[in-house]
Amino acid sequence: MNKSVKDILKKDLHARINGSLWMEANGERFFGPGPVELLERIAETGSINAAAKEMKMSYKKAWELITHLNGQTERPVVIPQTGGEKGGGSVLTDEALWLIEYHKELRKRFSDFLREESKRLES
Amino acid sequence: MNKSVKDILKKDLHARINGSLWMEANGERFFGPGPVELLERIAETGSINAAAKEMKMSYKKAWELITHLNGQTERPVVIPQTGGEKGGGSVLTDEALWLIEYHKELRKRFSDFLREESKRLES
Repeated sequence: MNKSVKDILKKDLHARINGSLWMEANGERFFGPGPVELLERIAETGSINAAAKEMKMSYKKAWELITHLNGQTERPVVIPQTGGEKGGGSVLTDEALWLIEYHKELRKRFSDFLREESKRLES
Repeated sequence: MNKSVKDILKKDLHARINGSLWMEANGERFFGPGPVELLERIAETGSINAAAKEMKMSYKKAWELITHLNGQTERPVVIPQTGGEKGGGSVLTDEALWLIEYHKELRKRFSDFLREESKRLES
């Protein structure tokens, strides 16, 4: 193969490789950009309700995502706080912060892969 | 980060990274597993109609895909044959064969990426 994709595609075409990525557990998709954004917003707002609102997600859907996540981890990722000084707020465990950090690094590696493949198209 | 995802997820969970990949031209998705499978089946059967049937795709949809592809390449990828010895058959140009080959190699590199990331989850 000494021809490149660039030679085959129309000259004015700006081609690139794009894709999506997620984590599966027992064959079922369970962790990706959506849940991560929810966790990040809970960390920022301290509230599942506020986080869901920011994402235009229903409170029910947000709880389902969190319950699902908590069910896949050894220790919960979100601990709802009821009453006390932080009444009604929710806190993320270290495990959640770790998953957010891991996900950031994974996305970075995937971006690098996509950029490299897009560059290869041009060569 | 010295904790691994493995330590966070439930012990009996088999987690892995999965994803999808496609080529975009001017921001629009135009080449991925579907069109490639269609090209491969046209190469095998010599017929757009037979290829579409095998994929349970309408003849109209198959033609749209091919017309779209032919519109993005300098030279057509599929040349419909009408009449003559091969009456009604269709042939793939070298460009199509090259795109199929390129796509195979791209998928292989993506598989490697996914396998590496899945392995990383376990470590």
